[in-house]
Amino acid sequence: MTDLIEALRQVSTATLASLLLKKHGMRTRQVRDISPLAAGRCRFVGPAVTLRYAPAREDLMAEAMLDHPANPTAPLVDALPAGAVLMVEMGGSLAGGALGDIMVARLIARGAAGLVVDGAMRDVGPVAAMGLPVFCRGAAAAPSFGGVIAVEANGTIGCGGVLVRPGDLVAADEDGVVVLPAHLAAALAEAGLEQERMEGWIKARIEAGAPLKGTYPPGPEVLAEYKAGKP
Amino acid sequence: MTDLIEALRQVSTATLASLLLKKHGMRTRQVRDISPLAAGRCRFVGPAVTLRYAPAREDLMAEAMLDHPANPTAPLVDALPAGAVLMVEMGGSLAGGALGDIMVARLIARGAAGLVVDGAMRDVGPVAAMGLPVFCRGAAAAPSFGGVIAVEANGTIGCGGVLVRPGDLVAADEDGVVVLPAHLAAALAEAGLEQERMEGWIKARIEAGAPLKGTYPPGPEVLAEYKAGKP
Amino acid sequence: MTDLIEALRQVSTATLASLLLKKHGMRTRQVRDISPLAAGRCRFVGPAVTLRYAPAREDLMAEAMLDHPANPTAPLVDALPAGAVLMVEMGGSLAGGALGDIMVARLIARGAAGLVVDGAMRDVGPVAAMGLPVFCRGAAAAPSFGGVIAVEANGTIGCGGVLVRPGDLVAADEDGVVVLPAHLAAALAEAGLEQERMEGWIKARIEAGAPLKGTYPPGPEVLAEYKAGKP
Amino acid sequence: MTDLIEALRQVSTATLASLLLKKHGMRTRQVRDISPLAAGRCRFVGPAVTLRYAPAREDLMAEAMLDHPANPTAPLVDALPAGAVLMVEMGGSLAGGALGDIMVARLIARGAAGLVVDGAMRDVGPVAAMGLPVFCRGAAAAPSFGGVIAVEANGTIGCGGVLVRPGDLVAADEDGVVVLPAHLAAALAEAGLEQERMEGWIKARIEAGAPLKGTYPPGPEVLAEYKAGKP
Amino acid sequence: MTDLIEALRQVSTATLASLLLKKHGMRTRQVRDISPLAAGRCRFVGPAVTLRYAPAREDLMAEAMLDHPANPTAPLVDALPAGAVLMVEMGGSLAGGALGDIMVARLIARGAAGLVVDGAMRDVGPVAAMGLPVFCRGAAAAPSFGGVIAVEANGTIGCGGVLVRPGDLVAADEDGVVVLPAHLAAALAEAGLEQERMEGWIKARIEAGAPLKGTYPPGPEVLAEYKAGKP
Amino acid sequence: MTDLIEALRQVSTATLASLLLKKHGMRTRQVRDISPLAAGRCRFVGPAVTLRYAPAREDLMAEAMLDHPANPTAPLVDALPAGAVLMVEMGGSLAGGALGDIMVARLIARGAAGLVVDGAMRDVGPVAAMGLPVFCRGAAAAPSFGGVIAVEANGTIGCGGVLVRPGDLVAADEDGVVVLPAHLAAALAEAGLEQERMEGWIKARIEAGAPLKGTYPPGPEVLAEYKAGKP
Repeated sequence: MTDLIEALRQVSTATLASLLLKKHGMRTRQVRDISPLAAGRCRFVGPAVTLRYAPAREDLMAEAMLDHPANPTAPLVDALPAGAVLMVEMGGSLAGGALGDIMVARLIARGAAGLVVDGAMRDVGPVAAMGLPVFCRGAAAAPSFGGVIAVEANGTIGCGGVLVRPGDLVAADEDGVVVLPAHLAAALAEAGLEQERMEGWIKARIEAGAPLKGTYPPGPEVLAEYKAGKP
Repeated sequence: MTDLIEALRQVSTATLASLLLKKHGMRTRQVRDISPLAAGRCRFVGPAVTLRYAPAREDLMAEAMLDHPANPTAPLVDALPAGAVLMVEMGGSLAGGALGDIMVARLIARGAAGLVVDGAMRDVGPVAAMGLPVFCRGAAAAPSFGGVIAVEANGTIGCGGVLVRPGDLVAADEDGVVVLPAHLAAALAEAGLEQERMEGWIKARIEAGAPLKGTYPPGPEVLAEYKAGKP
Repeated sequence: MTDLIEALRQVSTATLASLLLKKHGMRTRQVRDISPLAAGRCRFVGPAVTLRYAPAREDLMAEAMLDHPANPTAPLVDALPAGAVLMVEMGGSLAGGALGDIMVARLIARGAAGLVVDGAMRDVGPVAAMGLPVFCRGAAAAPSFGGVIAVEANGTIGCGGVLVRPGDLVAADEDGVVVLPAHLAAALAEAGLEQERMEGWIKARIEAGAPLKGTYPPGPEVLAEYKAGKP
Repeated sequence: MTDLIEALRQVSTATLASLLLKKHGMRTRQVRDISPLAAGRCRFVGPAVTLRYAPAREDLMAEAMLDHPANPTAPLVDALPAGAVLMVEMGGSLAGGALGDIMVARLIARGAAGLVVDGAMRDVGPVAAMGLPVFCRGAAAAPSFGGVIAVEANGTIGCGGVLVRPGDLVAADEDGVVVLPAHLAAALAEAGLEQERMEGWIKARIEAGAPLKGTYPPGPEVLAEYKAGKP
Repeated sequence: MTDLIEALRQVSTATLASLLLKKHGMRTRQVRDISPLAAGRCRFVGPAVTLRYAPAREDLMAEAMLDHPANPTAPLVDALPAGAVLMVEMGGSLAGGALGDIMVARLIARGAAGLVVDGAMRDVGPVAAMGLPVFCRGAAAAPSFGGVIAVEANGTIGCGGVLVRPGDLVAADEDGVVVLPAHLAAALAEAGLEQERMEGWIKARIEAGAPLKGTYPPGPEVLAEYKAGKP
Repeated sequence: MTDLIEALRQVSTATLASLLLKKHGMRTRQVRDISPLAAGRCRFVGPAVTLRYAPAREDLMAEAMLDHPANPTAPLVDALPAGAVLMVEMGGSLAGGALGDIMVARLIARGAAGLVVDGAMRDVGPVAAMGLPVFCRGAAAAPSFGGVIAVEANGTIGCGGVLVRPGDLVAADEDGVVVLPAHLAAALAEAGLEQERMEGWIKARIEAGAPLKGTYPPGPEVLAEYKAGKP
């Protein structure tokens, strides 16, 4: 797993999405309508741990609290494996923030790699300064129980239009968050590393003045030069 | 249960929503962004049975089929209790229709009272003619597995922004669909019947030319007349 | 005024909008994002009376009630001039219905010509059967005080993106609701009647098989025939 | 072509979308965000003729008129082949109506099979009564030149998120509008007729009380009975 | 007032929103769909001064100008009390920018604490560099009179879905803008200071490795330690 | 042309939009729903070169590739005139990124002044660091052919609601992107320079404490002082 994650860290989400489409016919692996909470803090790769919220109900506030026995959040986060990415289904809700700075402090203490929420976060000022890469739909001052209630940990969720199962590999950078089905991750890493290498070589050529035609995508001559190790 | 449902059938969703707000402080019990599939076919009351969809994944088409052992839809629908309302979480997806005419035929054969989907339906031409009251967000020609996959039956869901638990009472009319927490249904029915009675009496007065002032809401004098059984 | 309204009743909103654009450079006179509550009940012309709602606040419920002295709704509606069109600013809110069946009964008793709300209505089942033409954004079971509070009667409002001042002429049909600045209404009625006449003549020609070219818009020859009273 | 269109008329868009997805991997052939102008008048099949609008510019009003030599609309419509479906790209604009009742009269005179606009129509009261099936995004009183200008006839367009080329087959019913690539139409018609036949047989079984399990989709036994011609 | 504002400056909007919900049952006090114009310049507290815009009308351009006697903007801004927060209702309009750099220069000269607009600003390049914290929905190059017209100063407004009355306390930070009813501000400040203190203590514990369970929210033991002044 | 562009560089888009509205009655010249990819890298002026995408179709992937003879992108970009602004119509699609870092490298090698896309970009991390000012609607990891296909170079397009013709002058800064009809550019530059001069003078006065009244807009006295060259 460590090697796989290390390899995926060297592959952009653009390359992964391109391979998912061309080699596996997958068009819907990018989490929609989210953006990085802190510009420049958006790169991570790790296996998904999932948390699902449902809409809140006014008479269930006690159950929505972190210390209620029925609330799955604290057990999930207190036992989070190091390197995991917490994926949260909020159904786009901006009525309250999914997690605040204390929860993020706990995620950092557990060694989380990243956090993805298809809804709002709160305490985003402090959170942005704490170092954990976070993607979300916006900020809300209200607590989560104003709008949602946690109902399930580590089930199958839909996050920003993407099916996520615990153990899927989640990769993120400036282009966003892409969720790789677990069984495809190794193949994507291998093909991705090769594609990154070739595209870097092509980009250098283009920067040096080569035209798109024949170079990108590479025609037979250019491909031969690439394979021959020419600069 | 039969008496409760019979009573709730005589109370409008407007009255139920008004009581939920005034007596129980509940503001978010109406399913959002749905409308009746067939104008004039929108009234029902019944206990909720729930089905949850997640976004689809291209390589899981087999699991998304009705006859796959992991798909919870057919067992749920084949065993649907008579009088139940099927509440479906689709997360607003219009990429494919949740259910088509054959599924609706089976729901009717099982005696379903209604169907509520926070996403698209398909075969809506035939379905509109089949008699089951349906609320949904729109129509799609594509099958559900083009956009979503069924993942859970009779769990807690969020449907159009409303938390629904199996056994909640669902009431619907032209104003839409309101979900009553099970433990409040009897109190709402009783207070609702009384409110309908008084509002009918007030409306007759207003139609006869009475001003809003003093009549709606009724002032002490008008209230006394109402209690005295005056017309 | 009666003659003006009678004339405007014979002019479609399409013709009025066309004249507003071509003769007066006005592009934004149509109320956006509303539709008729009851199909086929959408035609009226009348002077605007205005009511403005602001968002609600939980501790102001008493002030939001119709019988609170600060609430401007009941005095406005109880004194509504016959033939008036009630224009309501709700800012698009669907959290609660602006008016229900009892209020509509009172509007009908006062002789209102129409009702336009850029938000939700409630009791829409009964309301649709009561005969008053209503345009709104949708239905809500919850009462208005769940989402909004009335703050001003007969001030300048914005309804669906259109500035409305009391006394503006409001015209509605299947294409929607157009608000005519009071000082332009007479000129629009006169030009509109002539345009309707000519377009009816053109339409008959097109239905008889004439090509668009030369006929619509009419070239010199066709125009001469029209002026000469030819069929 | 006549036989093909006749066959496609007997296949629902739901069946066509299902075959497009399962046999051809096509997920995006349904025009989004449109609905029938007149309930119950929405069925047609025919080859596409295309018209593209771009946003309007205030100083180009003359060019936006139907009789301007640069405007491609009148020549296109005056020469429309009988049985064609006019597909209009408006980019979702509701600022003005693409076509009004006179244009629709001309389309009917030319024998058009249908009209699909990913934007507004005007004169929708009269148009709904004229008999041509129309799909659009809404109604606007303002003329098209208030918001858009026609720029090209019979080019490749995007209509409601779907690529349309002249000659593609367009099929519509209550579920919406599906655009069939010309080269796939015959195969879709053939497979579609067979699927309709089988689904009708299955639906009758379900209506008679058969469970989903084993019947829909049909298991080996039920399939054998279907093939054996059993009722 | 100075002490109150000073106290509120030490309380985050997240804490205020949490107290509003838990102690006062208020769920809708955060201005929706706005964000800081300049990252990192978003903190302020002050009493609200209000300005309301309505949609523009093409023939009222003169009235929309700052020097027209009917325009309430210049008198309001020229007399703005030091420390005030200008809250502007624009109904979400992005058709033109509410205020530009000259207006902001005047606000700064008057000692404004902040500016909140539920619509667009213009000259946002210069404005972002001028030091006044501004929240808005976006940028527009066009002047405000292209889309809206100022109609009232210091009335009750709705800004981003929140009722604002002159004198309400407005608090803002990275989580957004929260509007405190004037009569609750002192209680919120007091409770808020205590909550900030306790949450800081809890956060330090969590950062030191404590689990959520028992610590957040604090169980009896941890609470006792907090009250005993343990680190 | 060089002088014109040099002059326009000294005029803000706010000033240009203001002149377009006041002198030319043009309200719709700003590209909607886009923002700068890299904060602080958003200023440019140049003549438009246009590229139009239509929605993709699954069986046309080969045609959507850069090296397919029917794809107009590579010839357009390989021959891009120095100083040009590439304007791309994507119809708002976020399904895939219009251009990635290799394409942007080629645009830079050709001397492009800017890039405007009413849809997504990809490789936005590297692109933001490469120096070309880019406006777009967001980021997508997927390649463009996942959602769109290039169909035409240097035709008339609609980009973010604005008609763009090749040769129109495009001006951009923090307020966004404004498209000037070619025939008005010189007049706008001249009037714009004068307006910038006067507004700078007024702003200095306001910053020095002058009231809005009499100063902005300038009354006769202040205007006389400005014309007399007073500070």
